[in-house]
Amino acid sequence: MEFMQIEPLKTLLANKQYGTLRTALIDLEPIDVSDFLTELSDDELVFVFRLLPKDLAAEIFVEMDTKSQETLISAFSDRELHSVINELFADDVADMLEEMPANVVRRIIRNADSSLRQSVNELLCYPHDSAGSVMTTEFVDLSADMTVAEAFEHIRATGPDKETVYTCYIIDDNRHLIGVIDVRTMLLAEPQQTVGELMIDNPIFALTIEERASVVRKFERYDLLALPVTDGEQRLIGIVTVDDAIDVMQEETNEDFAKMAAMAPAEAPYLATPVFTHARNRILWLLILMLSATFTGLLITRYETAFEAIPMLVSFIPMLMDTGGNCGAQSSTMVIRALATDEIVFRDYFRVLFKELRISLCISVVLVVVNTARVLLMYGADSQMLKIALVLGITLACAVMMAKILGCSLPMLAKRCGLDPAIMASPLITTIVDACSVLIYFNVASTVLSLS
Amino acid sequence: MEFMQIEPLKTLLANKQYGTLRTALIDLEPIDVSDFLTELSDDELVFVFRLLPKDLAAEIFVEMDTKSQETLISAFSDRELHSVINELFADDVADMLEEMPANVVRRIIRNADSSLRQSVNELLCYPHDSAGSVMTTEFVDLSADMTVAEAFEHIRATGPDKETVYTCYIIDDNRHLIGVIDVRTMLLAEPQQTVGELMIDNPIFALTIEERASVVRKFERYDLLALPVTDGEQRLIGIVTVDDAIDVMQEETNEDFAKMAAMAPAEAPYLATPVFTHARNRILWLLILMLSATFTGLLITRYETAFEAIPMLVSFIPMLMDTGGNCGAQSSTMVIRALATDEIVFRDYFRVLFKELRISLCISVVLVVVNTARVLLMYGADSQMLKIALVLGITLACAVMMAKILGCSLPMLAKRCGLDPAIMASPLITTIVDACSVLIYFNVASTVLSLS
Repeated sequence: MEFMQIEPLKTLLANKQYGTLRTALIDLEPIDVSDFLTELSDDELVFVFRLLPKDLAAEIFVEMDTKSQETLISAFSDRELHSVINELFADDVADMLEEMPANVVRRIIRNADSSLRQSVNELLCYPHDSAGSVMTTEFVDLSADMTVAEAFEHIRATGPDKETVYTCYIIDDNRHLIGVIDVRTMLLAEPQQTVGELMIDNPIFALTIEERASVVRKFERYDLLALPVTDGEQRLIGIVTVDDAIDVMQEETNEDFAKMAAMAPAEAPYLATPVFTHARNRILWLLILMLSATFTGLLITRYETAFEAIPMLVSFIPMLMDTGGNCGAQSSTMVIRALATDEIVFRDYFRVLFKELRISLCISVVLVVVNTARVLLMYGADSQMLKIALVLGITLACAVMMAKILGCSLPMLAKRCGLDPAIMASPLITTIVDACSVLIYFNVASTVLSLS
Repeated sequence: MEFMQIEPLKTLLANKQYGTLRTALIDLEPIDVSDFLTELSDDELVFVFRLLPKDLAAEIFVEMDTKSQETLISAFSDRELHSVINELFADDVADMLEEMPANVVRRIIRNADSSLRQSVNELLCYPHDSAGSVMTTEFVDLSADMTVAEAFEHIRATGPDKETVYTCYIIDDNRHLIGVIDVRTMLLAEPQQTVGELMIDNPIFALTIEERASVVRKFERYDLLALPVTDGEQRLIGIVTVDDAIDVMQEETNEDFAKMAAMAPAEAPYLATPVFTHARNRILWLLILMLSATFTGLLITRYETAFEAIPMLVSFIPMLMDTGGNCGAQSSTMVIRALATDEIVFRDYFRVLFKELRISLCISVVLVVVNTARVLLMYGADSQMLKIALVLGITLACAVMMAKILGCSLPMLAKRCGLDPAIMASPLITTIVDACSVLIYFNVASTVLSLS
């Protein structure tokens, strides 16, 4: 991390200038302090953490990695643990518990106040990847008949414990969400106006069981600072704040990149993930793809007579396979991305297909011209080479077209079948296209060069 | 888009129920209205847009695509254009001008009020991809000696024209940024406290010339709602709000995906981009990679004697190429992503390399065992096949290791040389790894099988 200088802080610690160190740490952002603490030995970590003022300590604690949190918890007295845990937001505690070993979880639960414990338990019940699992239960709720002045009083009284105060939620007596209001609107209004007349009815909301990817899209689309989350009966259960939505965005992007490169998504950052976990995340798809590529190999053996007659044919296989694979990867990436952002849906299929067909036509022309020129320049333009160039041209054009068709169709089909379109990411497309390209190649070659 | 039903609105329009349509549109979010308008004919678009109340019209206008905006502008009278343009934020006008033809730009500029015109001109001077190009100049500034009550007075007076009021910026007489304060802090404070005693000194900020990717990372890291942007002399020039940061995040992610799939990034959404633009974005890398793959082909021709002696050798080429390519893609994707999020930096190089070496060891073992079993099961375990299996095993292990080393090294090296690590994205890595795998394969084969 290049955001701040860790060395000067280490020097202060080594020189036992604890007062100066404490002041320096207080001036930093919590995440920066957390990065510094992670670099220390366990004993130093516990020692420096205890230097910090209580309110800041909790903010820093929540930014730390699981390992450092565990180290601290096992060094904490029950009283220290109690004071840190009860400063945290319920959603952060829930996230933390999911990573901790059972004995640590029990100690945390035992030291949490009953209201926190209850919120955390609720949050832990929502499926991973659901809106419920990323929301927080600490929000400001108002009633419609409050005046703006009363609402501000209420915010002042309850605000310090809420994740955001800028968007407040109006609920009725049965906790149904009936509107939202921004602090900005209230600041610009008269104190005696009521919340009910200023609020926005029918606010954008998410269901607790909604996919978190869909929550993220609502933030992107509607420029929200927070999104209310309700149960099936429109009762307000929690909110997602924009900073948590950004974290989910990041995680989803990381997952998509992993899938694009035929890996299971990693839960932790690259350097913090153990070697075996990395290997495990990568091996499954490598095996599947290796065995699928075997199929392409088997196809090739069927055409031994062809390349025994003209061995040069073999040397074009990599070019044909790679170009087909790359074309397929381009289309599938575009389509997977557009599906992920809801920019295209299944009923756009024929528009997408027609577009990809026209694109592959343009691309084929250029690739075939360049490749023909290259081959004839390198090997001369006798009648045999002209025939081979013809074979390559036909194969290239067919491979590009097929790659683009498969590349756009398979992800959309996967989505249609309720599967994640990203399983049709480029490596799988490449393997499928490879086999098809080889098949086309040797069939065209056999016909044009009269080989079989 | 699945966020709302467009058909019922179209029916209202067709049935000339304009009053009902207007009410329905007012209830919708601006982006949803914009999506509906985009589906209409040009005449309908202009007609329905004129139904909308003025304040909402501008909010909807800014969400529309360039084509629809142009249609509206050419239909507008100067008075209509004036009223829409001057409701917009300067950063939105600047973004819009970048896409418009020169005559439209002139009309817009002519109808902008002088203060707006000045801000827009300033914004247009910053390089694309800089913090300056994504910031807005409409923010709330306070002075340190104001009381909280005075600050709220100031916010009430100036707030309606600002992109956000929740984070306010404290500047001195020379417009140097000296602190930030949240509305939340002020809401929870006493009215007679001064802004100076409550503000945070040394706030996180960005420079106007800083890369916008770096702005995004600051939002992710520090959970900000807005980030101040200053010039080289620490003078406050503008702010970036979280919703604009999220848009940049999206664009950067789209660019990264495009690069991963060997494409130039598209500026517009998939369906809105013309076929020729798609083709142009894709063709360059396809040509580069096609010609590079030629090199692998040339290597293969050097070993004609080997595969003439044992034609079966050819059939393993796809499997070796694909597996090497996939291994390289995995490593390069992980590293490019970690570099992009600043999770690893160049001085981590040896840690990364050592990690990838150990990962490739684990992976090689599994792949070699499975592949050997597969080959011997399919072709029997005579002494020739055992030798071939040995060749494949050695080649696989070397290819995996080399792919992982290149996959992690080349992006880090590119970054070190000041290049975008993403140019070393998987397709290029694949091509390089292909050539090396083929080289290793035939060399090992020639030695073990005594072919040359």
